[in-house]
Amino acid sequence: MTSAAEELKARILAEGKNLGDGILKIDSILNHQLDTQLMMACGEEFARRFASYGVTRILTAEVSGIAPAMAAGYAMKVPVVYARKTKPVTMYGPIFLETAPSHTKGMEVNLMVSAEFMPAGERVLIIDDFLASGKTLKSLVRIVREAQCTLVGIGCVVEKTFEAGREILSKYDIPIETIAQIVSMDDGQIVLA
Amino acid sequence: MTSAAEELKARILAEGKNLGDGILKIDSILNHQLDTQLMMACGEEFARRFASYGVTRILTAEVSGIAPAMAAGYAMKVPVVYARKTKPVTMYGPIFLETAPSHTKGMEVNLMVSAEFMPAGERVLIIDDFLASGKTLKSLVRIVREAQCTLVGIGCVVEKTFEAGREILSKYDIPIETIAQIVSMDDGQIVLA
Repeated sequence: MTSAAEELKARILAEGKNLGDGILKIDSILNHQLDTQLMMACGEEFARRFASYGVTRILTAEVSGIAPAMAAGYAMKVPVVYARKTKPVTMYGPIFLETAPSHTKGMEVNLMVSAEFMPAGERVLIIDDFLASGKTLKSLVRIVREAQCTLVGIGCVVEKTFEAGREILSKYDIPIETIAQIVSMDDGQIVLA
Repeated sequence: MTSAAEELKARILAEGKNLGDGILKIDSILNHQLDTQLMMACGEEFARRFASYGVTRILTAEVSGIAPAMAAGYAMKVPVVYARKTKPVTMYGPIFLETAPSHTKGMEVNLMVSAEFMPAGERVLIIDDFLASGKTLKSLVRIVREAQCTLVGIGCVVEKTFEAGREILSKYDIPIETIAQIVSMDDGQIVLA
């Protein structure tokens, strides 16, 4: 196990809180406060795992995906595009739009990517904070396909193996890499693989 | 002038679009697509400029502040906290809440920071993408003060010197550093300092 994975797992056990309903609070690390050194180490870990895939671009979704995607993009020397959930006035021209249910917001959210930043033919790695239900990731995959890019893989910082995400995404037949895996959150516990 | 500043200015001139009403579209660099190498260079530039201030923590606001704050936090080896605009279910316990008008969204937004991530006594550097009206920054300053932390400075990637931000923030008597300065956007142009 790499040091990024070891440290991430130790921090999840030390600081993570099980809020029930499968909701893990680790906002001291990546959802509100950012451990910048650990995030960059996770980015290097993604770079190592996807080194042979010829990645030319990373796609993520705002908000919590930005930090790990930025870290991975820096390590891989490729640009990052983050799907916007609300349309800023600076977004104009053709966009790709998909919707996804938000686990932590309790509503459908839009995911919007300007077509100019997802040109056809790119080799796209999707990075996000969590692999859980897989629904946000599936919407990002649809954007990659609409854009006529090649999806080369999916990398997430934390996986909840007891949710259906990995199974749902398995049909795309691409590598799915996660740095820490939570196998159970039953009875208020946080059990790592 | 540093290479980060030189490259940023060249990129703004090459890719920036003046959308009128003082709105600058540079979402190929930091608002939708991220140039990860340039962002990290900007982070190192902030680290250099604030090296002597004993910064222990960086505060920014989601969404567009995250990438430059992450870059600066990594270079300075300090954690980043990003104010949330919508309250995720993982946010509970006491929070600091301020409101600010959003220039690009056309409405008031909340800025929320969990008290646990802004403990009293921290030496806080505020980082954001733009210094324009200064209103979001002023709300972040209020959070720093409510938290009984010391505000040591403000760093923004791009400044619009023709807006009132720097003047509004001057009363705090702290250093304000920006990497590229736009002095005019009249007549559809983008004029840099």
